[in-house]
Amino acid sequence: MMRYAVGSDLGGTNIATAVIDETGKVLGKAKLPTEADKGPEHVIANIMRSIDMALADASMKIEDMVGIGLGIPGLMDIEKGISLFAGNLGWKNVEVIKPFKERYGLPTFMDNDVRVATLAEWKYGAGKGVNNLICVTLGTGIGSGLVFEGKLLRGVTNSVGEIGHVTVEKDGLICNCGNQGCVEMYASGTGQARMARLMIQSGHFSIMTKMVGGDLSKINSKIIQDAYDEGDTVAIQVMNKTAMYLGIALADYINLVNPELVIIGGGVSLAGERLMKPLREEVYRRVMIVPRQIVKIVRSELGDESGMIGAAALAFERQGII
Amino acid sequence: MMRYAVGSDLGGTNIATAVIDETGKVLGKAKLPTEADKGPEHVIANIMRSIDMALADASMKIEDMVGIGLGIPGLMDIEKGISLFAGNLGWKNVEVIKPFKERYGLPTFMDNDVRVATLAEWKYGAGKGVNNLICVTLGTGIGSGLVFEGKLLRGVTNSVGEIGHVTVEKDGLICNCGNQGCVEMYASGTGQARMARLMIQSGHFSIMTKMVGGDLSKINSKIIQDAYDEGDTVAIQVMNKTAMYLGIALADYINLVNPELVIIGGGVSLAGERLMKPLREEVYRRVMIVPRQIVKIVRSELGDESGMIGAAALAFERQGII
Repeated sequence: MMRYAVGSDLGGTNIATAVIDETGKVLGKAKLPTEADKGPEHVIANIMRSIDMALADASMKIEDMVGIGLGIPGLMDIEKGISLFAGNLGWKNVEVIKPFKERYGLPTFMDNDVRVATLAEWKYGAGKGVNNLICVTLGTGIGSGLVFEGKLLRGVTNSVGEIGHVTVEKDGLICNCGNQGCVEMYASGTGQARMARLMIQSGHFSIMTKMVGGDLSKINSKIIQDAYDEGDTVAIQVMNKTAMYLGIALADYINLVNPELVIIGGGVSLAGERLMKPLREEVYRRVMIVPRQIVKIVRSELGDESGMIGAAALAFERQGII
Repeated sequence: MMRYAVGSDLGGTNIATAVIDETGKVLGKAKLPTEADKGPEHVIANIMRSIDMALADASMKIEDMVGIGLGIPGLMDIEKGISLFAGNLGWKNVEVIKPFKERYGLPTFMDNDVRVATLAEWKYGAGKGVNNLICVTLGTGIGSGLVFEGKLLRGVTNSVGEIGHVTVEKDGLICNCGNQGCVEMYASGTGQARMARLMIQSGHFSIMTKMVGGDLSKINSKIIQDAYDEGDTVAIQVMNKTAMYLGIALADYINLVNPELVIIGGGVSLAGERLMKPLREEVYRRVMIVPRQIVKIVRSELGDESGMIGAAALAFERQGII
């Protein structure tokens, strides 16, 4: 008999929730603003509201679910069900799982947002049937999930896959993590925008200045992609540098864990072949010959639905259903 | 009843062989020159001779063993038992396991030399009882083994752990692997010697020039360590750079796989605290706070015996005995 789960992807701006079946099919969904400024209790109430809405959308009841999954940002203790720290939510030591168990009386699980996205791509997306893969999310920050021999790895402190903090410029920009030259400082959405701003501020001409009406703080990955298509040299440079820096970090990662597949997702990856072509070139130039012969680099299939699908899938994975 | 195994660590210069019991105790050993210049058949005969000598040293017979293990350098197909390529032996597509099975009629296993050293340190050395660790060997090259959740990881093409080819200088020296700026180009024995030579050749005074009688090609890790103790500024610089480069690569590795322990072995590590102190500082400066809180960095306990002990232990591990 087919089993079902509901899961929410908690972002700094929005909550996305889905009801899925074991095959990853989305039967109902809902999207609500996070309203993080109103505090953790309000946010958790919003998640619950989105769960109720997604269930209604699927014409199903909570009793039809085998469990609830939550994908959340930041540092957490997944066993205790506590968010230790989430900068973009303003959360510190927030009890997350308990209120869901109390209200719904169902097994509830949480994990970091990038890891649940990996679970979705692995089980239902670009990684279906592949037992060894890396799934990288290029968003405001950069993170990844790692599947090895058919198992999603978490690590001793749930920190496996922190590719965003691989050093690519040993004397580079200082990162929030305390290190310098982290790939996240260059190849994330924030990093791309910074590189573009710095080039423009140092005197390079770019149509992006006009595109953002002179307010350079409005430059983002989408604008860089659009300017790229107009042949803007700053945008082209930024895209190639993004690929170069990400390529270094990915080649390191591949040399260390020997995957069959690398899946690239997140807003920055919407650049498509503008990014993927120079990225593949950089990785293949750097990675060792034997792991290089088997590794493929592809884009995410589930796009921005990977978070909510993966959150729901977490309730399957943690109960040994998938 | 206690079980026993015999294993050989095949190096470019020497073959080291040990008979061990399940607890890792060395009951007999032998050392012979490899004589790689005489061809693969001769080398394999030498390994067999060393096995016979180690058995005699232990006053045991081959029938007392549960299997034979071989730690070999280079690229290999461990299932087919073939050495695909080993530069320092001059080997290409050499049938390794078959002659041992034919002569001894025992289960025979091979794996790369760094991975078997990791097995030894994990089961019988500095990593005893630890389920998540990295063991790095700093020799002519740099390699590592990775234990995750109590399992020695190998990977799809047996390439897990190639830390030597993590990029630490994106525009750095060209490496044999085709990449540039690999940590192996700086922090291996060869890399250290190169850094020292380049500094001296560019005009820096060093007592090492006298120590090698003016022949700078004779500089090696041991000489750098001795010069360091005399306060030689070139040697001190080289040691600190070794620690810095290795620290970058290790911080990357820790951020990606979240281990409890990092074990450092190999000839370069004989520098002890001269290397370990600045290495720990560099790693702790760069690695993320959560994985940093649990990871310890220590030196190998088994030293240059880890290769032969690990080779023998491979016969236990592959048969599920340890």
